Amino acid sequence: MALDEQAFKAFQERFINAFRNIPDFPKPGIQFKDLTTVLKDKAVFAETVDVLTEMYKDKNINKIVGIESRGFIFGAALAYKLDAGLILVRKPGKLPAETIKEEYELEYGTDALEIHVDGIEKGDRVLIHDDLLATGGTAEATCKLIERLGGEIAGVCFLTELGFLNGRAKLSKYDVKALATF
Amino acid sequence: MALDEQAFKAFQERFINAFRNIPDFPKPGIQFKDLTTVLKDKAVFAETVDVLTEMYKDKNINKIVGIESRGFIFGAALAYKLDAGLILVRKPGKLPAETIKEEYELEYGTDALEIHVDGIEKGDRVLIHDDLLATGGTAEATCKLIERLGGEIAGVCFLTELGFLNGRAKLSKYDVKALATF
Repeated sequence: MALDEQAFKAFQERFINAFRNIPDFPKPGIQFKDLTTVLKDKAVFAETVDVLTEMYKDKNINKIVGIESRGFIFGAALAYKLDAGLILVRKPGKLPAETIKEEYELEYGTDALEIHVDGIEKGDRVLIHDDLLATGGTAEATCKLIERLGGEIAGVCFLTELGFLNGRAKLSKYDVKALATF
Repeated sequence: MALDEQAFKAFQERFINAFRNIPDFPKPGIQFKDLTTVLKDKAVFAETVDVLTEMYKDKNINKIVGIESRGFIFGAALAYKLDAGLILVRKPGKLPAETIKEEYELEYGTDALEIHVDGIEKGDRVLIHDDLLATGGTAEATCKLIERLGGEIAGVCFLTELGFLNGRAKLSKYDVKALATF
């Protein structure tokens, strides 16, 4: 598929319309954008995979890193389409072999993410994927994990972005893309 | 690709060899088969997707149900390849819209899985996917969720199966496939 501006805008409209709005989830005052209705719509789902493939197909990417757990979904489809390996970044204790860990800040307290030490090799060209860019904490931690292992971050891609949280500020060193901004 | 017996056996050998053996994970005495080395190997990963696609391409499947969270990985790739929607079955509290729930037994106590009530429509032809068939509790609960919503279970597929746990006994009504048995 071609990705000229007009075709992208038409896709983007279908994509945005496929999200379900959930008021007050996970807490009052938050308007949650539910991805599951995008996944259920086989035409929009496949088109989203194709658009992301088109965006990254010439970037010599050999590893996709998917962030637990919704990042596994398009991460897997992209790995298949881009002829890349899929590497999982998970919550502590989920990965069974030797890992390294990065902490990141939550609203209250901290959490952490892990990657297998042999998941990335020096010189790997890595595309990081998660469904949502919010504060950017998990994506930033993931970038650090990959760079500690010698990987080169070819891009960081999200389905959607909460623009008002300015998560991009934490990722300003990288090529960051989101298919839609809420 | 053709799936004659010889080609399948050759694939199966590559597939089994791609797992990493982890002794004593998650607890002493258990030999854990680590899927992440399969995912990392782009050739084996893509071939696995292609083999599963071949197995189900003529089954008129319109929904893939992936079980949290490793079931999302090949579930997503299969949804793309089989031109189906992807539906997530998740731990309680993770799905934001109206859900139904099924409990299943653990070694000590119970856990539960949920699905969105509008994830499956009456008459949907559903392929359930998870990475591992162990005791069969989560897959059985998932079958119940889908049937409560009027879906027809066209198949239940796993990457691997722990044969000695006999999880298939819980799924004897269904067409159950696993690419390898440990």
